Amino acid sequence: MPTLPELSTRHIDPAAMPPGVAFMDGQYLPISKAKISVLDNGFLHSDATYDVVHVWKGAFFRLEDHLERFFRGMEKLQMTIPYDRPQIIEILKNCVALSGLQNAYVEFICTRGTSPTFSRDPREAVNRFIAFAIPFGSVANPEQMDRGLHAAITDLVRISPQSVDPTVKNYHWLDLVKGLYAAYDRGAETALLLDTNGNIAEGPGFNIFAVKDGAIATPDYGVLMGITRQTVFDLCSALGVRCEKRDISPDALKSADEVFITSTAGGLMPVTRIDDTAIGAGSVGPLTRQLTDQYWKLHEEDQHRITVPYPA
Amino acid sequence: MPTLPELSTRHIDPAAMPPGVAFMDGQYLPISKAKISVLDNGFLHSDATYDVVHVWKGAFFRLEDHLERFFRGMEKLQMTIPYDRPQIIEILKNCVALSGLQNAYVEFICTRGTSPTFSRDPREAVNRFIAFAIPFGSVANPEQMDRGLHAAITDLVRISPQSVDPTVKNYHWLDLVKGLYAAYDRGAETALLLDTNGNIAEGPGFNIFAVKDGAIATPDYGVLMGITRQTVFDLCSALGVRCEKRDISPDALKSADEVFITSTAGGLMPVTRIDDTAIGAGSVGPLTRQLTDQYWKLHEEDQHRITVPYPA
Repeated sequence: MPTLPELSTRHIDPAAMPPGVAFMDGQYLPISKAKISVLDNGFLHSDATYDVVHVWKGAFFRLEDHLERFFRGMEKLQMTIPYDRPQIIEILKNCVALSGLQNAYVEFICTRGTSPTFSRDPREAVNRFIAFAIPFGSVANPEQMDRGLHAAITDLVRISPQSVDPTVKNYHWLDLVKGLYAAYDRGAETALLLDTNGNIAEGPGFNIFAVKDGAIATPDYGVLMGITRQTVFDLCSALGVRCEKRDISPDALKSADEVFITSTAGGLMPVTRIDDTAIGAGSVGPLTRQLTDQYWKLHEEDQHRITVPYPA
Repeated sequence: MPTLPELSTRHIDPAAMPPGVAFMDGQYLPISKAKISVLDNGFLHSDATYDVVHVWKGAFFRLEDHLERFFRGMEKLQMTIPYDRPQIIEILKNCVALSGLQNAYVEFICTRGTSPTFSRDPREAVNRFIAFAIPFGSVANPEQMDRGLHAAITDLVRISPQSVDPTVKNYHWLDLVKGLYAAYDRGAETALLLDTNGNIAEGPGFNIFAVKDGAIATPDYGVLMGITRQTVFDLCSALGVRCEKRDISPDALKSADEVFITSTAGGLMPVTRIDDTAIGAGSVGPLTRQLTDQYWKLHEEDQHRITVPYPA
């Protein structure tokens, strides 16, 4: 008769975590205690939507826009949560204040959740809201911000809008992850994926912009409607710079004067090499620099700020 | 000065769970205690692969085949775990034996895991192995097994192999979930998705087969290489029934004599209505019945069985 191992009453998790605070089920928790069931459909079917807002120098930036996109995503996925926008703002403020982080990466998530019977019918699951604040992170590190990122155009095609609606921010990233590995193999630091027509789509967590002869273009098909992307449109409009949403071929991107990417995780970030091609002069271009400066200046204006009530 | 809420030291989870036992980090746990960090890339990027094997009357069915696919998937995703096949068999046996379940749904998972710094580089994450056993479940309930499922062909396109390799079993299900909601809206019980060429691909967790004039066909492009699908090939070969892997148009499917689906969750399951069309006579067909009987008979043969060492 074989001896069976003991059943533990509690999971002891050996993984090290960054600092931070999460919210789940009415409770605020250290990030290391914020866990979802392995049976949650948000995990087992990646049946979830989310958004990420950043806190910079003690204030959220464009939180209302992120909430707008989040609620639209939940509606499209037919999910409901017991919190409205003011309540979520309160929860996010509390997560950040409890974390003490002045610069934070703040994610809020709705998963399909679990059903007590492990039903295959998503309508029987109880949807679940989760939020967390951890230290601010960037796609590009300081050295890359200074000299520009090196990107590779992979032959991977970003998941088509015929399959998954890219305007619903989602966790379907295996194409992007495979792109990253392909880029690393070629000595690059990040990956650019194609759309179903062979044009440039987006990269892992960011939108892509090309500058040519003083005008800017960014793809519009099969990409996330990024909030930082929207901020670039706003800045261009204020500066009188033409900015078009249109297809960009890989060749057009490589022959651009400047290339930059945008993400809540880092803002505007320069790209100075794509595959073996130096972009423009191979260093960060003047319009990229100007827009990046304007982007961070915008953080000081009241219009997009919601301040965090840190304890004294 | 606003008062901040308390930080809890432990998450109290209100969700009800099915019975079952899980394995994580060397520990066997009640399924209700099996949780992954909200920061795990397996959740936040659906960067994971998995497999599901079933236990029927106290024995695993075709476990070696499921393990083969699982290890191939991890290799393609460049993931590694500290367990080899015999060790995983031991772990799965323990999960099922500890659960006491004679008929079980047994899932094993490798996620990219977490990195202590929340790095965006997947190479810096520590990959994580998880397994669990819960009660056996089926795509079709007993009534549906008896009268046949009603399916709808949606206009959703299953995520393309150009984006995500369908032979790596993965959690990218938002297209399938959207398909389910579309099917429910049309009064159907499950959904069939198209491939990028407009032919039939697969449904939520199952492959599709059509019977016409005594021969069988199943799609081969953009679909999971199902183990139950393989069992149908084996059974057809033994019975001398022709079974082809080829494209099937929606019209060809609707004009089939019989249609059935296959999944580890339920085996072979009849489909007797697609959209407004009755398939064949509108009841479960003779070849579907014969193959279903053979499928369950195969469970009694030693060739595919690994028995579970339940305690006395």
